[in-house]
Amino acid sequence: MTTLLLSPELLAGDEAAVEGDAYRHLFRARRLAVGERLRVVDGDGAARWAEVAAVDRRRGLLRLLDPAPSGEPGYRLELLVAVPKKERASWLVEKATELGVVAVRFVETERGPRSLGPGTRERLRRIAGSAVEQCGRARVPEVTGVHAWSEVPGLLVGFAGRWVLDTGAGGGGWGDERGDAGAVLVGPEGGWSEAEAAQLSALGCRPVGLGERVLRDETAAVVAAAVLLVPPVAAPSPRG
Amino acid sequence: MTTLLLSPELLAGDEAAVEGDAYRHLFRARRLAVGERLRVVDGDGAARWAEVAAVDRRRGLLRLLDPAPSGEPGYRLELLVAVPKKERASWLVEKATELGVVAVRFVETERGPRSLGPGTRERLRRIAGSAVEQCGRARVPEVTGVHAWSEVPGLLVGFAGRWVLDTGAGGGGWGDERGDAGAVLVGPEGGWSEAEAAQLSALGCRPVGLGERVLRDETAAVVAAAVLLVPPVAAPSPRG
Repeated sequence: MTTLLLSPELLAGDEAAVEGDAYRHLFRARRLAVGERLRVVDGDGAARWAEVAAVDRRRGLLRLLDPAPSGEPGYRLELLVAVPKKERASWLVEKATELGVVAVRFVETERGPRSLGPGTRERLRRIAGSAVEQCGRARVPEVTGVHAWSEVPGLLVGFAGRWVLDTGAGGGGWGDERGDAGAVLVGPEGGWSEAEAAQLSALGCRPVGLGERVLRDETAAVVAAAVLLVPPVAAPSPRG
Repeated sequence: MTTLLLSPELLAGDEAAVEGDAYRHLFRARRLAVGERLRVVDGDGAARWAEVAAVDRRRGLLRLLDPAPSGEPGYRLELLVAVPKKERASWLVEKATELGVVAVRFVETERGPRSLGPGTRERLRRIAGSAVEQCGRARVPEVTGVHAWSEVPGLLVGFAGRWVLDTGAGGGGWGDERGDAGAVLVGPEGGWSEAEAAQLSALGCRPVGLGERVLRDETAAVVAAAVLLVPPVAAPSPRG
């Protein structure tokens, strides 16, 4: 099923015109025809069914119908991550979006880079929007930062689940404290400083491990999201 | 801890000379000094401790010591995947290697591309080798294919765990049949053909889902590896 991201104003109406890139995607690449159905979403969590009412050489007209499933996970998970390299930031955002994460927030750390490149945040938001259409969600995750380290306590307000990835922690250790929202903190390649680790501990962040191998930071972030958001295997997982 | 990939012949000896790229990496970038320890592996699963015995301007000499932990998972997991696009194949191989997969085999499918680009397999093997050093494994996963569809039954011989990813399967369904080795099949963007799905079913491949959202094929492959190889959360995972 095709999903199209519209503005919240358009999604609230009875019909919506589609031009430009979205027109080319729906009516040239995917060749949707009059009468065909798709799913339209507003990026804020709302989704409706829609039907192609008319198509001409430059625009299409959609008739907006009943609410549709949001495709959003029941759990609100945010990733707070040290600033990665550019290419790695792109796929971190893409994969986190596919998995259902609601925000990726880049955080300044003692041993990690302090800034994203110019235009990076806008590029990452476009990537998140495309991934929402691709995977059938309704909410575009927030991409924010680089946040000062001093903002971390504020960013964690309201989260019952608070985890910090720790390569020394072996496997597991996620605990039962989860609530309906949580955040996973992912440090830089050089690891957390002692001061950072102490502050995260004081904030109630639980150290968790992802197994014996050392995952790259962006891999670790995506795997943590998978562990928390993807339905688990029934039997105990083989470890190693 | 630094890991260096050596040839099996070198790993079997008492000392090993390091030149070229590996020299630059160990002694220029990481600045290992005489007396420092590292881990050397042969790419086939063997690992030893080593100590820097001498360094000059063009080569370093390592003294090879006791066996070291392999960093290999207890479960042997292979991924059999439809041919992805080039960039996506790179990160699939990198992330699968970090997670501990022992082989990535590209398979011809009715709705997927039939070939990798020229030089792609060699490039992917280099990526796998780098990831082994980065994550601290001892075995470089095999990267093979493109295999004809008719080879699939042969590729599955010896695997007790046989799963096929199916976006229609919802979440879970991994079952208890796992043994000590398994394979996950990941189809192309357009899905399996009816004939392919029927053959996989006849081969005992169990359809499993990764949740409500539609993951890209390479994301699905990596998430399936994470689900099977990463120690799970203790409590039931939130679903959505």
